Amino acid sequence: MSKPLILISNDDGVQAKGICSLIDGVREFGDILVVAPDGPRSGMSGAITSTIPIKASLLKKEEGLTIYSCTGTPVDCVKLAMNQLTDRKPDLVISGINHGSNMAICVHYSGTVGAAIEGCIFGVPSIAVSVTDHSPDADFGETVRLLRQVVPVVLKEGLPAGTYLNMNVPNIPEVKGIKVKQQAAGKWINEYMCSENALGHPVYWLTGDFCNSDPENPENDTTALDNGYASLVPCKIDVTDYNYLDTLNNLFS
Amino acid sequence: MSKPLILISNDDGVQAKGICSLIDGVREFGDILVVAPDGPRSGMSGAITSTIPIKASLLKKEEGLTIYSCTGTPVDCVKLAMNQLTDRKPDLVISGINHGSNMAICVHYSGTVGAAIEGCIFGVPSIAVSVTDHSPDADFGETVRLLRQVVPVVLKEGLPAGTYLNMNVPNIPEVKGIKVKQQAAGKWINEYMCSENALGHPVYWLTGDFCNSDPENPENDTTALDNGYASLVPCKIDVTDYNYLDTLNNLFS
Repeated sequence: MSKPLILISNDDGVQAKGICSLIDGVREFGDILVVAPDGPRSGMSGAITSTIPIKASLLKKEEGLTIYSCTGTPVDCVKLAMNQLTDRKPDLVISGINHGSNMAICVHYSGTVGAAIEGCIFGVPSIAVSVTDHSPDADFGETVRLLRQVVPVVLKEGLPAGTYLNMNVPNIPEVKGIKVKQQAAGKWINEYMCSENALGHPVYWLTGDFCNSDPENPENDTTALDNGYASLVPCKIDVTDYNYLDTLNNLFS
Repeated sequence: MSKPLILISNDDGVQAKGICSLIDGVREFGDILVVAPDGPRSGMSGAITSTIPIKASLLKKEEGLTIYSCTGTPVDCVKLAMNQLTDRKPDLVISGINHGSNMAICVHYSGTVGAAIEGCIFGVPSIAVSVTDHSPDADFGETVRLLRQVVPVVLKEGLPAGTYLNMNVPNIPEVKGIKVKQQAAGKWINEYMCSENALGHPVYWLTGDFCNSDPENPENDTTALDNGYASLVPCKIDVTDYNYLDTLNNLFS
């Protein structure tokens, strides 16, 4: 029987330390196909490239490991892989390891999560994985250790159709374990630093602080991270608010 | 009492016919603040600009209508509006009218929907609205007519915290009405046309067909459109798969 095929992408680019650590960490579980952006695509969410063509370049091909860089977004990478770069349907998609947290509402901004959503839309069990450290030389040791507990379980059990996993790992020397949690609610505040460009016109740099709207809730993914655990949130492609359907229906019938 | 403040954005750019039709169509319901991209940003999903600064330019300021163009993404536009361009919290965010459908799983790719998600994260009732016609000169008459039924209801009733609306309108002369529906499941197939660049290297243009995985389901938003109705799907910011939490928990405890 052939080994599982694991498709890997990210949003920090194919050269990032996070994706290299991921490749090394999961290589024993299957044949690895990497299709990742040719440079940073942080904050690209589920963006797709529709007005210009994209390109892929083969960087490496050896036993069990093929690496392409791609000029597109994380979602483009997954789409191109599935449509053009392999005849086999992957058994697993892993996106990351992201340099920086993608907890709580960050699922809506994250290119790392965007790639996992795309894998899930293709019917492949998919995992987005991130560590709470933005630095280019972040330590991925604990994240790899914990992800290596998750990967064989997902390869064996699969995931429900339309559900992917969002894993975040705190940047501490000894993570206590994995906690299955819910997406924390909240928003970002003080999001811009105003500065001036060379012409003296105001320009705005994105910054800000996350404001958790229910910080005491022990079921939040953020709480798990604060307490030294990795969080694992199962997330859905179907975003319909089923609880509100009837009320809304009454308003328009 | 002051009029409601309605914040408008889109992903086709501030000059697009769709946003102009939207402004004209809802102006009577409130004071209008437009902050929209300075050009097309289709398929930008929830992307944010974090590595370069963004800029806003005041295009128009008259009684009840202020228009800015912004160098960022649709989400950037909403964030900048909320953080820097108005002291009033908007009563409503409307994103669109998009040239082209954003039904089914397109919520994950759409910049139009990205802006509505951002409004919702800020705690403002938010609506994404699209018509199933990509052409620059699409006819927005029916869409405006139906949206003008939705806007006063949402201004009066509000929406649940964390829930926004995704409205799609078929491109036909007489739309039969509005149906509250669910996000259809499916995926895109045959997504690339392979071509060659000037150097003879393969390049890939995004294209494809939507493949509905449950086409007979009368509750799908796609079905409503096929049957000549506008679809209205309530969507959630919280994407947690609550039904799978216990099973996943058992796998990791």
